Amino acid sequence: MTFDQAKESFLTTQRQAYSFLSAVALMYWDLQTIMPPKGVSSRSQVLGTLQGEIFRLTTSDAYGAVMDTLAEAPEKLSAREKRMLELAQWSYNRNKKIPADAYEAFSVLTAQANHLWKGAKEKNDYASFSPHLQKIIDYARQFAEYWGYADKPYDAMLAEYDPALLTAQIDPIFSQLLSGTRKLLSRAGENVALPNVTVPPERQKAVGEYLLAAMGYDLDAGNLFTTEHPFTCSIHSGDTRVTTKYHPTQPLSSIFSVLHEGGHGLYDQNVSPELDGTNLRDSLSMSIHESQSRFWENTVGRSLAFWETHLEKVNQLSGVALCDDPKTFFRAINAVRPSLIRIEADELTYNLHIIIRYELEKAIFNDGVNSDTLPELWAAKYEEYLGVRPKTYAEGVLQDSHWSGGSFGYFPSYALGNLCAAQFANAFEKQHGSLSGHVQTPEGIALLVNWQKENIHRYGAEETPRRIMERVCGENINPDFFLQYIEKKLAEVY
Amino acid sequence: MTFDQAKESFLTTQRQAYSFLSAVALMYWDLQTIMPPKGVSSRSQVLGTLQGEIFRLTTSDAYGAVMDTLAEAPEKLSAREKRMLELAQWSYNRNKKIPADAYEAFSVLTAQANHLWKGAKEKNDYASFSPHLQKIIDYARQFAEYWGYADKPYDAMLAEYDPALLTAQIDPIFSQLLSGTRKLLSRAGENVALPNVTVPPERQKAVGEYLLAAMGYDLDAGNLFTTEHPFTCSIHSGDTRVTTKYHPTQPLSSIFSVLHEGGHGLYDQNVSPELDGTNLRDSLSMSIHESQSRFWENTVGRSLAFWETHLEKVNQLSGVALCDDPKTFFRAINAVRPSLIRIEADELTYNLHIIIRYELEKAIFNDGVNSDTLPELWAAKYEEYLGVRPKTYAEGVLQDSHWSGGSFGYFPSYALGNLCAAQFANAFEKQHGSLSGHVQTPEGIALLVNWQKENIHRYGAEETPRRIMERVCGENINPDFFLQYIEKKLAEVY
Repeated sequence: MTFDQAKESFLTTQRQAYSFLSAVALMYWDLQTIMPPKGVSSRSQVLGTLQGEIFRLTTSDAYGAVMDTLAEAPEKLSAREKRMLELAQWSYNRNKKIPADAYEAFSVLTAQANHLWKGAKEKNDYASFSPHLQKIIDYARQFAEYWGYADKPYDAMLAEYDPALLTAQIDPIFSQLLSGTRKLLSRAGENVALPNVTVPPERQKAVGEYLLAAMGYDLDAGNLFTTEHPFTCSIHSGDTRVTTKYHPTQPLSSIFSVLHEGGHGLYDQNVSPELDGTNLRDSLSMSIHESQSRFWENTVGRSLAFWETHLEKVNQLSGVALCDDPKTFFRAINAVRPSLIRIEADELTYNLHIIIRYELEKAIFNDGVNSDTLPELWAAKYEEYLGVRPKTYAEGVLQDSHWSGGSFGYFPSYALGNLCAAQFANAFEKQHGSLSGHVQTPEGIALLVNWQKENIHRYGAEETPRRIMERVCGENINPDFFLQYIEKKLAEVY
Repeated sequence: MTFDQAKESFLTTQRQAYSFLSAVALMYWDLQTIMPPKGVSSRSQVLGTLQGEIFRLTTSDAYGAVMDTLAEAPEKLSAREKRMLELAQWSYNRNKKIPADAYEAFSVLTAQANHLWKGAKEKNDYASFSPHLQKIIDYARQFAEYWGYADKPYDAMLAEYDPALLTAQIDPIFSQLLSGTRKLLSRAGENVALPNVTVPPERQKAVGEYLLAAMGYDLDAGNLFTTEHPFTCSIHSGDTRVTTKYHPTQPLSSIFSVLHEGGHGLYDQNVSPELDGTNLRDSLSMSIHESQSRFWENTVGRSLAFWETHLEKVNQLSGVALCDDPKTFFRAINAVRPSLIRIEADELTYNLHIIIRYELEKAIFNDGVNSDTLPELWAAKYEEYLGVRPKTYAEGVLQDSHWSGGSFGYFPSYALGNLCAAQFANAFEKQHGSLSGHVQTPEGIALLVNWQKENIHRYGAEETPRRIMERVCGENINPDFFLQYIEKKLAEVY
C-alpha cells in the first residue's frame, strides 16, 4: 500500500464512519422525539447493528495498517490530517484493547440496567438495582485495566470525555472550588419567590424558539422538539437539534433547559463546515462543551442584563407574566438553596453536587468502594457539603442515570465547564468590555457568538482543550474566575 | 468456507443491508418533512455515502461467493431462506452488470435532472430540459442492455418494479382496459359540485388521523406528517409513516392522499415481523403495493357506504360541512371528467393517463423515440384517448417527476394496481359478502384488514405477485373485474 492509497483509504473510512454516526444520531434523536412507540424494538436492533458496524469499521486491522502507513510519514500530512490521524489512532488503540465479547456484554448490560434503574428509582428500591450496578462497576474496572492509565484507574474513565484529563489535575481544582463554595454559602440570604403561573406547551415552545433566536442559534440549521430528557443532537453540518420538556406549571424549567441546550447547539452549529465528514467535527472535550451550555444558561441566561431585554417579550409570549420586574426575576432565578437534586441546583451549589459524585467515582475506581456502600457514602457527603440528607434512594444515589449507563467520569465535565465558562467570559470582557452591554442587543449577541465561534467552536476537535484554554484565557482551568464571578453575583442578588 | 459459515455470513449481510436501508429511509423521510433547510447539502452527501455502502455490501465478490456456496445445497435451506437467496442473487446479478462508474454518473445525473425538471416545469421550458432527459434515456437504454431482457428492452425497465413483469403480459391487458374504458366514457353525465370551503391544516390533520384510524392503520406504529409530495415510508418493523399535503381550499386533496398512503401504510405495517432484518420485508411488486393504496383510496374511499358512516364526523372535524349529504358527496368524488393531470384524474380516466405513459415508455425503449419528439407524442395521445390537449409542457410531458429521476417502467404499476384491487375486492366478497356492509363498522374494517394481512401483506416479498394473485383470486391480472366494478359505479353515480 502506497502512502497515497493509505491516505485515500483513511479519508474514505472517516467519511463512512461519519455517515454512520450521522445516521445513528438521527435514529437516536427520532427515537427520543417522534418515533411511534411500536418501533422501539426494531429501532434498538437497527441501532445496535449500525453501532457494531462503526466499531468494526474503526477497529479493523486494515484500518490499523492504513494508519500505520500514514504515521510513518507524518511530514506528508497537513496539520489537520495529522490531528485526524492522532484522534483516530487514539480511539483505535483504546477500542482494540477491549475484547469484542466484553464490549458486547457491557452494551447489553447497560441497556438493561438503564431500564432497571428507571424502575428502581420509581419504586425507591436500591436493593434490586445494586447487583446490576455492581456488575457495571466490575466491567468498568476491567475496562480501566484494559485501557491502562498512568496514575489512577479512574483516569482511564476520565479519558473517555477528555483524553488528557487526570485525577491529579482535577483534585486541586475541586479542592479549591469546594472550600471557596462552602465559604460563599453563608452569603445566601432571603430569597424572593415568583408567582405560580401555568404556561401551556405551545406557548412555552414559542418562548423557547424566541430565546434560541435571541441567542444566535440558527433555527434554519436546527429545530426544537420535546423529549423526556432534554439533549442536543448534532446530525451533520447544517443540522443540530435541541430538545426540551414542557412542564405547564414550571415554565422556567424549559426556559433554562433551552438556554442550556442552545449553548451546546450554538457550539455544534458553528463548527467549521470544512470538518464535515471527519472525526474533527466532534467536540474537543465534554468540559469545553459544557462550558458553552453553562455559559448561555447561567452567565448570560441568569444575568440581569439579559432579562432586562427579554422579560417583557417572554411574558407576552407566555400569555401570563412570569414576573413583572427584571430585578425581582433576576433575584428569583439566582436564589441559592442547598438541595438534594443536581439538575435543580443553583449555580453556586451545583458544583458541590458534582464534587460529591466525583469523589464517589474516585472511591469506586481507586479505593475499591462497591455498590452496596454507595447510598450511605452519598448521604454522608450531602450532609457534610450541603447540610441536607436524602430521605429516599430516588433523591439520593438513584437520582442520575449516568452510572446505570456505564458513564463514569462524565460528571466532572459539568463543574469544569462552569469554571471554563467563567474564564471565557473574563477573556471576552478583556477584549470587548462588559458582557452586560452586549447581551442587550442583537449586535452585541452577534459579536459574542462570533467571538465564541472564532475562538472555540469552529475548531471542533482540531485543537486540544488545553491549547484552547491557554490561547483564549492565557492558562488552563483555574477556579478563581468562577469564584470571583459567583461572589459578585451573590452580592447583587442578596 | 463451510455451508454454515456461508449461511451465517449471508444472514449477517442481510441484517446489515436492512439496517443501512432503514437508516436511509429515515434520513430521507426526515429530509422531506422536518429537516432544517440548511442540512440539505450534508444530508445529500451522507445519503450518498450510505447508499454507496449498501451497493458495495450487496455486490461484493465475497457476498457473491457466499451466495454461490448456499446455492450449491439449497436442500439445506428453509423455504424462506431459499426465497431470500433467490431475491438477493437476482439483485446481485442485476447490480453487478452495471459498471460502478456508469451507476455513479447516472445517480449524479438524475439528482441534478430532478432539480432541473422542477425549474423547467415552473417555467414551462421543455427546451432546456430535453437534453438532460435525453442523457437519462441514453443511460437507461444502456442499462437495459447491461441487464438484458428476453424479448423487448423495455422489459428490463419493468423488472425493476416487478422482476417477472413483461411488455407481452401488459400489452393485452392494457389493450382490453383501453377499449373498455373508452366505451364507458360515454356513460359519464352531469356532475354535481361541492361547496367551496376552507379547512385549516390542523383540522385537516385531525381528519387525516381520524381516517387512518378508521381504516385500521396503527398510529402507534406510524405517524402523519406533511411533505411537498405525499409518500409512505417504511423505516422498519413497527414504524411505517405516511405523509400528506394540506391545501386549505382543497380539503379533498389530503383526504384522498391520506387514504391512498394509508393503504400503502397498512401493507407495510402488516408485513410479518418475522421478516425484519431480511430482504423479504420489501413488497413483492409495485403493482401489488399500488393495489392496496388504490383499494383504500378508491374501492373503499370512494364508496357510498364508507361516507355514509364517516361524512358526519369528517364534517365535524373539518369545522365546516364538506357536503351535507353522503349520496351527493359520493357523486361528487366520483365525477368522471377527462383531464390533463394524472394525479387529479377520476378512477375511470386515470388508467388512460397510465396507458399513455406506458406507450411512450415502450416507444422510447423499443422504438428509439427520443426526448425531442415526446411532447408532440404526448399531446397527440391525450387528444386521442381523452379528447384534451395540453396547452403547456407543464400540463403535458413535464407533469410527472418519474422520468427526471430515471424511473422508467414504474407507471404501469398504478393501472395494474387498480386492476388487482378490483380482483382482491371480488375475492374478498366471495368469501365474506359485500364490502359495503363491512366498511361501515370497525369490526367489518378489522375483518377486511385482517383478510388483506393474511392473504397479501404478511408475506412481504416471500411470495411472488403471480402466486399471490393466483392463490387469492384464482388467476393472474385480468381487467374484467375492474371494468365490471367501474361500470357498476358509473351506473350509481349517473
